Amino acid sequence: MKVNNTQYRTIWVNDKNLPQSHIVEIIDQTKLPHYFVIIQLTNLLQAANAISTMQVRGAPLIGATAAYGVALAMQENSSDQALDHAYERLLNTRPTAINLRWALDRIRGKLIALKPNQRSTAAWVEAAQICDEDALINEAIGKHGLTIIKKLAKKKETVNILTHCNAGWLATVDWGTALSPIYMAHDAGINVHVWVDETRPRNQGASLTAWELKEHGVPHTIIADNTGGHLMQHQLVDMVIVGTDRTTARGDVCNKIGTYLKALAAHDNQVPFYVAVPSSSIDWTINDGIKEIPIEQRNADELRLMTGLTDKNEMATVMITPANSPIANYAFDVTPARLITGLITERGVCNASAKGLTTLYPERKNG
Amino acid sequence: MKVNNTQYRTIWVNDKNLPQSHIVEIIDQTKLPHYFVIIQLTNLLQAANAISTMQVRGAPLIGATAAYGVALAMQENSSDQALDHAYERLLNTRPTAINLRWALDRIRGKLIALKPNQRSTAAWVEAAQICDEDALINEAIGKHGLTIIKKLAKKKETVNILTHCNAGWLATVDWGTALSPIYMAHDAGINVHVWVDETRPRNQGASLTAWELKEHGVPHTIIADNTGGHLMQHQLVDMVIVGTDRTTARGDVCNKIGTYLKALAAHDNQVPFYVAVPSSSIDWTINDGIKEIPIEQRNADELRLMTGLTDKNEMATVMITPANSPIANYAFDVTPARLITGLITERGVCNASAKGLTTLYPERKNG
Repeated sequence: MKVNNTQYRTIWVNDKNLPQSHIVEIIDQTKLPHYFVIIQLTNLLQAANAISTMQVRGAPLIGATAAYGVALAMQENSSDQALDHAYERLLNTRPTAINLRWALDRIRGKLIALKPNQRSTAAWVEAAQICDEDALINEAIGKHGLTIIKKLAKKKETVNILTHCNAGWLATVDWGTALSPIYMAHDAGINVHVWVDETRPRNQGASLTAWELKEHGVPHTIIADNTGGHLMQHQLVDMVIVGTDRTTARGDVCNKIGTYLKALAAHDNQVPFYVAVPSSSIDWTINDGIKEIPIEQRNADELRLMTGLTDKNEMATVMITPANSPIANYAFDVTPARLITGLITERGVCNASAKGLTTLYPERKNG
Repeated sequence: MKVNNTQYRTIWVNDKNLPQSHIVEIIDQTKLPHYFVIIQLTNLLQAANAISTMQVRGAPLIGATAAYGVALAMQENSSDQALDHAYERLLNTRPTAINLRWALDRIRGKLIALKPNQRSTAAWVEAAQICDEDALINEAIGKHGLTIIKKLAKKKETVNILTHCNAGWLATVDWGTALSPIYMAHDAGINVHVWVDETRPRNQGASLTAWELKEHGVPHTIIADNTGGHLMQHQLVDMVIVGTDRTTARGDVCNKIGTYLKALAAHDNQVPFYVAVPSSSIDWTINDGIKEIPIEQRNADELRLMTGLTDKNEMATVMITPANSPIANYAFDVTPARLITGLITERGVCNASAKGLTTLYPERKNG
């Protein structure tokens, strides 16, 4: 997507130093939305560091960065031992990220079967493949979601879409999931306007989603998370699209905390509520999201402290709660399938139900 | 209520300088929760300033401060002209605060009928009366609400109560509205624990409500506004109590933005949802809150900027959104009566309906 009128992905290879070596480049997301900083990853340690310090975040992008981390390691030393070391080092950066293990297993599986002197080249090819596949999946989600937006655009001059958290291109390699249909609609000349939930406590909406949309030129307005219900009561929202961290076989959706509240409001006001679901997010082994998905509790400092830009243009952190008040910080909640109008997958749109999902994924019919 | 083990109201008269003059003292709420600062108001200008800079806030406390502002003015000059000037000066501090006009009309009505040399004494008496009446109304709300909490306490060891925004003693002269039953339950030895919504964008929950509860010793936990639905899905909330800015004749409630989302979640999870309603908040002339109550939009800086304490113990403000992203800041939303379990008024608890309210307020039966 565009940044200051230039097309970017979130991660790419800089080949200026070839044939000596490849360098990987990323956008430092910890500096957004205040500074747009590109940083270079030249070795395994830097790649691992980029993941653990959250310079890159979002499941698909973490997986892609880990794959490039292996490629950077192989470029220096392609022994079995170096491969194992890279795998372990990268896996430990974010222990709970499922995509991280998936990407590492995939690239190690390929490389371990090769002779050491073939591994470096193969690793760069495989990492690029992982990136391209992610972009294609998100592009497919975008096209299917675009069909829904096009229908709404026939009835209204501007289609107002509410989103929660950041399921945009910054969380993936390109396009994003929930924002992909929105970018496609905008690029197709449809008037879309996005209500951007701030998304406390980490403010991914107010920082990342707002920045993405601004840079690509998509009209948007930041709102406090508390606001969506009021907007829906007053017919100011035509649809909701959110992402998902984990989707159950019957269509329950585990996503950023607060998603459930927006789904309730959408249901109460007959606003269509869609979830962009890459099939990699579907956990076919579970059904009841509320009972079966344990919800991560994160550090209280995410709520207690707030980082931003001072009037001297410096980054600073302030404490916004009493010093000694207890804080609970649940990261996700579960939206039951009954509140969801449809799931937008790379294979098409389906009902949020076991039947809907297995119609698109018939190979999963028996679990 | 208690601050550091000493009993306080939010506004009081310091008589140390008598017989020369009274001084009014308030807690500077703009410094909370980081500093507990008491400031003295010695003249009309300082009282007006305290209201307009939000050193005092909350409808009942604004009214009380305005009444004392008139008393401070009369102490210096009790002419008709001085009375009119004080009235106008104070009314312009917060043009939309209904309680402000009510308190000013009441005290001017009393004073204008008196000779100038009787006005100063009468003004101090009337202002004190306004304060005592507010405390008594809130105490009555507390007692009626306590009955509900006592019933829940029979079934559970700890009663978990969720609240939104600050409807505590800091918003009133004493006790608060939504928090009054909680303070009474705590003082009566019932184990209550309060889930405190942060309440973006002005963070009244994370700053004022958390501070109040901490100082009075009531167990509590601060959460992001996004969290309540998840807690209710997991049986971690036994009841919700919120305040109201305006209540319609049929029991719709206009309160801080986000209240409606919590009411939806409570309804979806069979959690009782109560509103503490001083009768002064009831607007008997309107019924449909969503259609009839215009919602104030406030300055975008409330969302864009965040003030807190740096690690050097200084107050600082940082920008947390992209500099140029549009922001919408709706201050209130409307919770329809169908989602409300009961209204806790100073006369007792009733259904959120025209019938429920007129049972308690029969004199209003014909509008």
